[in-house]
Parts: sequence; C-alpha cells; structure tokens
Amino acid sequence: MSKIPVAVLGATGAVGQRFVQLLADHPWFEVKAVTGTERTIGLPYGQGTQWVIPGEAPASIAPLIVQPTEPNLDVPLVFSALPPDAAREQEPLFAAAGYAVATNASPFRMAEYVPLLIPEVNPDHTSLIPRQREVNGWSGFIVASPNCSTTSAILPLKVWQDAFGVEAVMMVTLQAISGAGYPGVPAMSIADNVIPYIGGEDKKLENEPKKLLGAVRGGELTLADIRMSAQANRVPVLDGHLASVSVKLRRAATAAEAIAALETWQPPAICTELPSTPRRVLIYRQEEDRPQPRLDRDAENGLAWTVGKVRPCDVLDLRYMALTHNTLRGAASGSILNAELLVQQGYVQ
Amino acid sequence: MSKIPVAVLGATGAVGQRFVQLLADHPWFEVKAVTGTERTIGLPYGQGTQWVIPGEAPASIAPLIVQPTEPNLDVPLVFSALPPDAAREQEPLFAAAGYAVATNASPFRMAEYVPLLIPEVNPDHTSLIPRQREVNGWSGFIVASPNCSTTSAILPLKVWQDAFGVEAVMMVTLQAISGAGYPGVPAMSIADNVIPYIGGEDKKLENEPKKLLGAVRGGELTLADIRMSAQANRVPVLDGHLASVSVKLRRAATAAEAIAALETWQPPAICTELPSTPRRVLIYRQEEDRPQPRLDRDAENGLAWTVGKVRPCDVLDLRYMALTHNTLRGAASGSILNAELLVQQGYVQ
Amino acid sequence: MSKIPVAVLGATGAVGQRFVQLLADHPWFEVKAVTGTERTIGLPYGQGTQWVIPGEAPASIAPLIVQPTEPNLDVPLVFSALPPDAAREQEPLFAAAGYAVATNASPFRMAEYVPLLIPEVNPDHTSLIPRQREVNGWSGFIVASPNCSTTSAILPLKVWQDAFGVEAVMMVTLQAISGAGYPGVPAMSIADNVIPYIGGEDKKLENEPKKLLGAVRGGELTLADIRMSAQANRVPVLDGHLASVSVKLRRAATAAEAIAALETWQPPAICTELPSTPRRVLIYRQEEDRPQPRLDRDAENGLAWTVGKVRPCDVLDLRYMALTHNTLRGAASGSILNAELLVQQGYVQ
Amino acid sequence: MSKIPVAVLGATGAVGQRFVQLLADHPWFEVKAVTGTERTIGLPYGQGTQWVIPGEAPASIAPLIVQPTEPNLDVPLVFSALPPDAAREQEPLFAAAGYAVATNASPFRMAEYVPLLIPEVNPDHTSLIPRQREVNGWSGFIVASPNCSTTSAILPLKVWQDAFGVEAVMMVTLQAISGAGYPGVPAMSIADNVIPYIGGEDKKLENEPKKLLGAVRGGELTLADIRMSAQANRVPVLDGHLASVSVKLRRAATAAEAIAALETWQPPAICTELPSTPRRVLIYRQEEDRPQPRLDRDAENGLAWTVGKVRPCDVLDLRYMALTHNTLRGAASGSILNAELLVQQGYVQ
Repeated sequence: MSKIPVAVLGATGAVGQRFVQLLADHPWFEVKAVTGTERTIGLPYGQGTQWVIPGEAPASIAPLIVQPTEPNLDVPLVFSALPPDAAREQEPLFAAAGYAVATNASPFRMAEYVPLLIPEVNPDHTSLIPRQREVNGWSGFIVASPNCSTTSAILPLKVWQDAFGVEAVMMVTLQAISGAGYPGVPAMSIADNVIPYIGGEDKKLENEPKKLLGAVRGGELTLADIRMSAQANRVPVLDGHLASVSVKLRRAATAAEAIAALETWQPPAICTELPSTPRRVLIYRQEEDRPQPRLDRDAENGLAWTVGKVRPCDVLDLRYMALTHNTLRGAASGSILNAELLVQQGYVQ
Repeated sequence: MSKIPVAVLGATGAVGQRFVQLLADHPWFEVKAVTGTERTIGLPYGQGTQWVIPGEAPASIAPLIVQPTEPNLDVPLVFSALPPDAAREQEPLFAAAGYAVATNASPFRMAEYVPLLIPEVNPDHTSLIPRQREVNGWSGFIVASPNCSTTSAILPLKVWQDAFGVEAVMMVTLQAISGAGYPGVPAMSIADNVIPYIGGEDKKLENEPKKLLGAVRGGELTLADIRMSAQANRVPVLDGHLASVSVKLRRAATAAEAIAALETWQPPAICTELPSTPRRVLIYRQEEDRPQPRLDRDAENGLAWTVGKVRPCDVLDLRYMALTHNTLRGAASGSILNAELLVQQGYVQ
Repeated sequence: MSKIPVAVLGATGAVGQRFVQLLADHPWFEVKAVTGTERTIGLPYGQGTQWVIPGEAPASIAPLIVQPTEPNLDVPLVFSALPPDAAREQEPLFAAAGYAVATNASPFRMAEYVPLLIPEVNPDHTSLIPRQREVNGWSGFIVASPNCSTTSAILPLKVWQDAFGVEAVMMVTLQAISGAGYPGVPAMSIADNVIPYIGGEDKKLENEPKKLLGAVRGGELTLADIRMSAQANRVPVLDGHLASVSVKLRRAATAAEAIAALETWQPPAICTELPSTPRRVLIYRQEEDRPQPRLDRDAENGLAWTVGKVRPCDVLDLRYMALTHNTLRGAASGSILNAELLVQQGYVQ
Repeated sequence: MSKIPVAVLGATGAVGQRFVQLLADHPWFEVKAVTGTERTIGLPYGQGTQWVIPGEAPASIAPLIVQPTEPNLDVPLVFSALPPDAAREQEPLFAAAGYAVATNASPFRMAEYVPLLIPEVNPDHTSLIPRQREVNGWSGFIVASPNCSTTSAILPLKVWQDAFGVEAVMMVTLQAISGAGYPGVPAMSIADNVIPYIGGEDKKLENEPKKLLGAVRGGELTLADIRMSAQANRVPVLDGHLASVSVKLRRAATAAEAIAALETWQPPAICTELPSTPRRVLIYRQEEDRPQPRLDRDAENGLAWTVGKVRPCDVLDLRYMALTHNTLRGAASGSILNAELLVQQGYVQ
C-alpha cells in the first residue's frame, strides 16, 4: 500500500523531534507536514529546529517548511506533541475539521469518550470514538497516550487485574529528567539531588490507571474500581521511568503465580499486526537488581516493559518494579503505536 | 570536667574518617587511640589513611599510631566503624573486656538486650544494658545505631506512634551512594541510573523500626506490632537518604493533625543535655517539593530530620517524605550522640 | 567600630543569595537594603526569593523589603549581583551618585580605570580609582571582580610572573554548572555530558589575566605582555572551576623551583588585615590527583586556591592545575574581599 | 566465503563483553572460543559473565564454555581484551604459537615492530609484521590498538601532518569513566567531581601519536618528530573521550584551510573495503558547542571521529576539539577494524 501522509504538530520541541525521528522510516506513515512555534514558522525544519536529542534531523524531513499549527494540512492523521495550552486549544479544532489526532499531550486524556490508549492494554477502548464524534459534532477524533509515568507502571496491573483482580495500588516513581522536556529541569536543581515533586503528576498517576483499566461497553466507559496512592520523584537519570509498586489483589495469589501470569501473558492478537509492536512486550527479569533505567530502557528499541522484583508485601499483597523508556514507549513511540492501531482497526484510512 | 578518652575502631575507612573528623573537637570526648587494617597498623594515622571525604585528617589525631583492633586500648569507650565481619568478631571481645562499645555496624543491632538506639527516639532502651551484661557475662556492653536508611524514616513514625498509634508502614527509599562506603558502588553501575536493590536493606528497613519503636519494661523489650514493607533503591546522589512512606494509623488523624504533631513535638528532655543535639531536631517544611537531599542534608550540621509532604493516602492513611544525612545523623554523628547519652545516663564515666 | 551599612543589588538571584548569606554575619558590613526584580519588589526578601542554594535566607535579612535597583539607598557601599544588561545600565548611575560599587558583573571589568581586583593579586590597582572618578565625573566608583574562571587560574601566574616572568599561557578550563547561575544550564544539556563552549568565556580568559597582572603607575594601567589561548568547557560538577594551564616563562625555572615559589609565597601584607582573608590563601598539594573540585572547593571556606601537578611541559615550560570555588572565591566572597580592601585602604568609610 | 573463526581472550570483562557483542553478527568473523578468569572457566559464557553493558550476552555466544587463556584454541585470530599483566604474559605465547593477535591491551603498543594501528591513519604499518616475526621467531604476530584517549585526538593530527606538517601538540583530555573498565572508578570518587589524573595516561598520550604518525620504510619505523604535552582528566561522563588540542604547524595554515583539509580528507582506499568502516569517518561540525560526548559519541555506531572548534591559537597555531567513543572506536571496534585490515591485506586467512 502507499504510505499514509501524516503531520507532526509541535515538531520542533523535544517530543516533536522524537516523533520526527521515529516516523522518518516508518513502514505505514510518511511525514508530509510539520508545525512549530512562531520563531520557526517559514524556516526549513532542519534549520529552524535546535536539535536536542542525539543524532540529527532526518534528511527526508529536514527540508519541510515549518507551518503554523492550523487545521489546513493535507493529511488525514496528525501526531500532537503540542505543549498543554496549545493542545487544549488546537486539538479540538483539528478533530472538528476531520483529522484523526493521536496526541501525547495531557489535556484530553481524562475527557469523556477520548480513548486513553495503549494497544497492548486496552485496544478495545477505540470503540469510544463514534460516541466522541457524535457528542462533539466532530468529523475527526482524538486518542490520547497516557502520562509517561502511568505507562511505566501499568502493564503488570493489567495482567494481574485480568488474572486476580486489583483492589488497591501504591506507587512511588523515580522519573527521568527527559520527562520534563527541554529546557525542562535546571541542572542546578537536579544534579546530586532528588526532587520529590512533579507538578500534577501524582494526580495523573492516581487517575489514569483507572481509565486505562476501565471497561467500555455500549460506547460508555466505566472506570476501574481501584484505590490509588502515588508519589512522583524526579531523579538524576536521563531517560527511563522506574516505578515501585505495591498491590492489593482481589483474589489471593502467590508471588510465583503472579510472576507466571506475567511470563505467560500475550498481548492482544491485533498487536501482532502492528509494525511497531516489539517482539517482547513484557520482559520479566529474575535478577534481584533489575529493572535499571540505564540497562533496560532501550530493550526492544525502547518499547518493552521491563518488570522485576515481584515478591510478597506485608502491608498489601505483592510488590514489583517496572520500567519503560519515557520518551519512546511513554511518549512518541506510544502514540505511533496508537495510530497504527487506528489504521488496523479502520479508523484511519 | 576533663575529657573522656575514646578510641575509634576501624578508623581508616570512610565511616571511621567521619568519626575522627567529628570527634576532633568534641567537648566531652578525646580520641586517644585509633585502630585500622593490617596495611595501616604501625603508621601514623594521617599517613596510613587514604582520606576519601572532603577536608583532611585532623591535626590532633593525624600523629596517633594506628593499632590493631584488640581490646587492650586504654580508654573506657570505643566507637566502632568496623566492617560487619570484623564487628561480629571483635565487638563482643571489647564488651567482655569492659569497654562501652557504641557501634555503627550491623551485626548486633537486632541482638537481644542490645539497645538499638537513637536518643531522640528511645533513650530509655539503655535500660537493657544491665541485662545484656548479665546474660553475656560482660563487664562492658554494646549499643548500636540503626541502619542509615531506617534512621531517615523513623522520627515521624515515632511521633505518630505516640500520638495516634501506627499499624502498618510502606517504605520506598532513595539512598545515597555514600551509604555503601568506599570504594562502594562503581560509577559504571550508578551513573545515569537507579539500582533497585541494596543487599539486606529491605529486611533491615522492615525489622529495625519494630525494635526502635518497641517498649522496654523490666529489662525486656517487646517489638512494636507494625506490619512493614520496604523497597530500597540506590540513586546517583552523594549524601542524604530520602524515604517515601505511607502509614496506616490506629486512630484516625487528618493531615493537619499529623503535621501539628510533628511541628509541636519536642525531643525527650535528656536530649537537651547532650552537646550534639541540634537546635532543631525535626524540621517540617511546607513546600511541596521538599525535602531534597542536596538542599536539606546539611541542616543542623547534618543532624536534623527534614520532613515534608504529609498528606492523605487513599490506600493507607497518610503519606510523608523524610530525609537525613546518612553518614552524619545516620552513622557517625548518631553513634556519637548515643555515647553522649550513655555518659549523661551514667553508663560511661 | 559600628558596622558599615551596605546594599546588595540583584539580591534575589543565585549570586545575590550568596552575597546575602555571606554578609549576614560579616564583622564589618551590615546589609541594610536589598534590590530585586519587578516580581519581588515590595515583598519581604525572605518571601519574594526562591532560595536556590543550600540553607535558608538569613533571619536578619529576610524581613527587608525588596526595593527597585535605583541609586537612592541609604548606604555608602553596594555589592552588585546584577545580570549583565542591568549592570551595564545601573552601575554607572550608582557610581555617579557617590556609591562605592563592588561588582561581580562583567560589563566594566575591562573598562579603563576600573580596577579588576583580587586583593591577593593586585591590591595596588585601587590607585586607578581617583582617575576613574575624574574621567567620568563620578563622586563614587566601581571596582570589579574577574570572571570566576579567570580567578581559578590566576594566582600561580601571579606568583611566577613575579619570580620568573610569564610570556605565554595556554588554558583549558573545566567549569561547574553553578557558574551559569539559575536556572542556567538545563539538566538535559549537561547530564552525562561536557559542553565545550561557554559564551564569551574564552575571550574573558584571554583578556582578564593581562589586566590583573598589569602594572599601574601614575594612575595608568599597562596590560601585561602575555600571549594567551583559552578553551572553556562546562562539566557536570556543581561547584568548583578547575583549570589546566601550561606556561612559557621568561626566565627558566625547574618544576621544583616553581613549586617552591608557590609554597613560599605570601599574600600582600594588607591582606592579613582583611577579615575574610583565609589562613591559607594558596594550598599546594603534592598528590598527583589533586586538586579535585569536590574535595578541594571548600578549603578555607571556599576562599583558597588549591594548586597541584606542577611539572615540565615539553611544548611550553611548565604545566599546573588550579581550582577555586566559583561562587565563593570566584564571585560573592571575592567581591566582599574587594570591599574589605576598599575599607582598609580608606576608599570606603 | 565462510566466516573466519576467532576467539576473544578475556571475554568476561567489560571490554571483552563489547568484543563479544560486536562480533555476534560480524560478516567476516565468527566467535568460536572465549577465555576468562579462573572463576568463570568451565561455565557457559552467558552464565559465568556478569553483564555490565546494556543488553545481554548474544544468544549465539552465550552457550560457549569459557576456557583458560592458553594458546590451544582452534582459530587463526584472537582478539585480546586481557588486563595488562595477563596480556604481557599471554600475548607473546599466542604470537609464538602462530596466532594473529589483535590486542586492545597496552603492554606491546610501543614495542618495536608491533604495529600500533588504526586503519584510517596508518594501514601501511602492518608492513612491520614480517620483521616482528623474524626478530621474535614467531609464526604469528601482534597488532595493537592505541589507548582510547590517543585515538580521540589523533585523526586531525594525521590530516594536518599530511597537509601542513605538525611540530608540537598540547592536549588536555576529558575522559569517560568507562575507560577505566569495571568496576573501575568508584562513584564516591567521580560523582560531582573531576579527577585530574589517570595512571600512565599522560605518557601514553605523549608517546603513542609519535608512533601512529611515524613512517615505516624497509620494515623499520621512525617516530614522528613532534613535541607533545598532555594532561588527562577523568570526568563524570559514561562514554566518549573528548580532547582539547592545540597544534604548532610546520607550514602556516589558516583555520579555514585547516577545516577544509578535514572536510575534504578521505580515508585510505583500503578502508572502503573493510565492512566496519563507517560511511563518514570524520565528521566536522560547524556549531561552536560541538563535539559533545553524549550527542556525538554514537555517530556512525560509535566509529566516527567528531571534530569541531578549529580556530587560531595565540600561543601555538590552531586549536581544535575531537571526540570518539572510547569503548567502540577507541577499543573493541577499533581492534575489529584492525583485524579486518589484516584479512584484507592477507595477513590473516
């Protein structure tokens, strides 16, 4: 098939650069347009962009002229790497104008009828899309990726929810500085330090899993009934969000049973049809000192969940630690996987 | 009064160096002997020691000749900075020979009748000493400091145990690399990384608080009845252990009440008679992004607990974060305070 | 004597906070006024300032109301921690209005008749002040501290210039992130990295030593005749600028002679009369792996030069490495020493 | 052709692991044997090796049983990642027994008739091999890779030596912690710090370029006549050695001419026939803040030299900065390229 033309909104920022880098050689998508800030509009992308991630602007995209973020782009699908305020304003305009919007931004994650989506976790939530269009009077629609720290912790919860039921979850995250974008965190703040605060993050960590693990029936979503408590910390690590999680199950399970559930879990069948789905989605490591951000974040090109340290918890039932690459699985790659799912399910053509 | 002569066992290692540095100008104690490894025995301390902490060996102690670690030192009180194996072997020999041993090592922390001691938390636990002597047939005795990460988390638990009762505690620690001594953690292991494992630490974090918060009556200690769950992590921070803690109380309390309990808490009266007790033992910070290791570890010369972020927890009852300097309050300074308490209570003369 | 009232201009920034912290207990000076940005004017200093260095705003200064930076403060002496643009505009207004301005800012460092001053290096350069007043028609005057990286390297050059003459100097600096102020360098830029560029720094490193080592006669300064070449690098270190320097001498000297010159050097006599002059101004370390930023930056409360590794250079004549604390000796403390010199020499009363 | 069987000596250490990882899919070589320490001998490689670099032991090599380092392996070519003492003892035994030894170890780098080899710099130095065999009575031979920091700086020197002649070189290096192997540098030593000393490194930096840039005629090597001065520093960076270099040329050249020489340089023709030669061997970057270790070390899979900041030097003639990945181009990948050259030139069959 010929490739689907796509655009990247907010392509000049740190997350936008990741989108551009990852889409440069994508088998299904071809970047035909990029939008950026006032300062960069009218310049070739490769010239207007201060490249802040390793490597360089891809040669195929560097010559594209940066455009304003307005819904007049000749593509059916846009990836949004917009900052929150711009996303809140622009994404509905694009959806209204008929675009499929795969966003990494936060404003509409918890909005009713907007699927908060991870293909390996809840691919059926796209069934909210028709209702979303109807309620808003949009010809297009929005699907959102969760916060990068939510993503890190979620997969074992999904597996155990299906196997045993989940009643309560206590999370402490150790999050990388790249999660704050660029310029983001001043070196003077985080060098030789931990900052036990990330604005709004605890609430996201407490709310988003309830939606991701919720049930969609008849175009309506019911939040999962789980008590949540979260504490997000910024640590001096470049990439890779690590989550320390304790879980109260609805049905008793030993650590061995819980590990077996993780090791035998298979992603939903449709995931195997998506080109970015990694060979191993969930890697369970037996070593008592894994996962570690620097050693595990790049597993499966940054698309795997690495999980370890499942063991009994004397206060709730079980503990574990999980890690994903926050700017790949937790951001740009995650949204690209969402778009692949939309294509495979026929929502984008 | 004239100063009490003391010795530092294992004075040439990283913790030993801290003891030596802190004791150089102590108002009650005077270092008269230092012991060290085979390699350093017979050399002047200032020459045999590879100094690994900022500053230099104190001029008053540098000329002392390093001696073997044997109970023939002409002092009544010894500080032990021995590694675990040496401590397990040597400390009982010193206690048997009549020395008061204030140890920072781990082997006897959980031993029956050995007080696990923090003057601000459980100064009455020294009443185990007579029974310790009797049971072991020792003319001397041992008192131990807790693990440095236990210390970080303990003070709010003590305050709330007295105020509301504590039923269960969930801890995740973010611990500094200096906690592993020197050479300790390879840079290749921890740079741009987190290691979710510290050998034996989770067990210490789960056991030691039960002893510290236990009750001593009639020379017998009853462990506190608290369910504990802990996960220790090493982070790339030089000094300062940070603990993220959730607590289930026995009697309901609001966050405001729990904060008030911390802010109005006063250390036991005897603490005010000890020269190293800081002006402020517990500092509660209102900012939502404190405590932070680099900004708070040196408060009160590294002897304060800095606590913050007390708020409701939807899974247990309350969350908080606490921090202490792991090689000062959590190690050398802590043992020195213990020794001051022993003097003030008459156990050392 | 009663203390001299002083003001800190730009007191709410990172360097300004250092001034405030250091002046809180100064034996000669008392902070009577602080100025700050639009946002902070009218607020108590302790409330308007986001404190970014360890510790807290001093209790004696926290209640002062932040004022606009205008020359209507009731003090004879002001310390300037203004950013470059504000300094360029405001400092002449203060000098014109009769204030003695001890500045840490860059704009007037190389201005004719403005002493670029380090008391231990060129205390006689204050003799430019009368001519500065005359030429500008000012009743006050400006004295400037050098760039913090110039300061790191300069003292051995001064000693050897006096002893042997200096013909050419090659410098490579490894500079701390605090040199860029707050927020300064993004963590995403410097974590696990070196940045071989600091805007304008190479030129400062090549020009300022010629002025510092220049001769003042009859109110006129002659720059030292030294060829200079510099490369400044930012490294992931919090505090402490390290300089690797090679020198071509005018008269031959062995490394042993050059070390002896450093070890026997004494600061100018007037320095001993200044309260902030450290006991040891220049510390020569024999170890082949010193100076190191973390181990040596705090020597003598951050006011010493630590020098090491003097040895032959097969291309020029001698190599050495030198280190100072960039925000103490290289910034706030350096300006305070300059002000003490002005008092002792009678330029401020 | 069928692949050439090879062995990795010292395969269980950090550099050995890199060899194994890089050789797992090599088009010309197939790892048939691995040797290791006493502790690991007899175990499957994947089990005996504590993997310290990202990723895992390759599945094709993990089952190989670790053997002692003795010259009875059934391969014609061995890669040596042995520590210095073992290399000094074992490599001559392998050479005597007929093996081609491509070593990354230091002992024989400066040995007469042992080519110190970088294919892009001095591929003709392999003509020393026949004489090496003759003099030592060996049926095999040794070729050595230079020290990883020498490698970083060398390529611009080679280009300019050919274009203008080089008379003197002043180097300051900022070297990554991975250069010290594993466990290598303690985190307590290098976190928030720079160590201005790496044992023996300054001498290597001063001697090896003279050999690399020397001329081989009639089986005899003449060292290049260059005055050298070097200062090696360890910085808290994981990978990537950065060199700040000043050069005195024999014939005058402007910075523009010197940059043009770099930009138009082509590697020797034979390099294009080697499978590991990168597409771009030398990348000249125009930005004033490049090269940077984290952004440039992985260029061309860690095989490129990234060079920047060529500009006049007022003390010598020109300055530049250069960077390579120390464990890839500067170690394992460099030795593999050397072996490819040996095959292409017919020294290994």
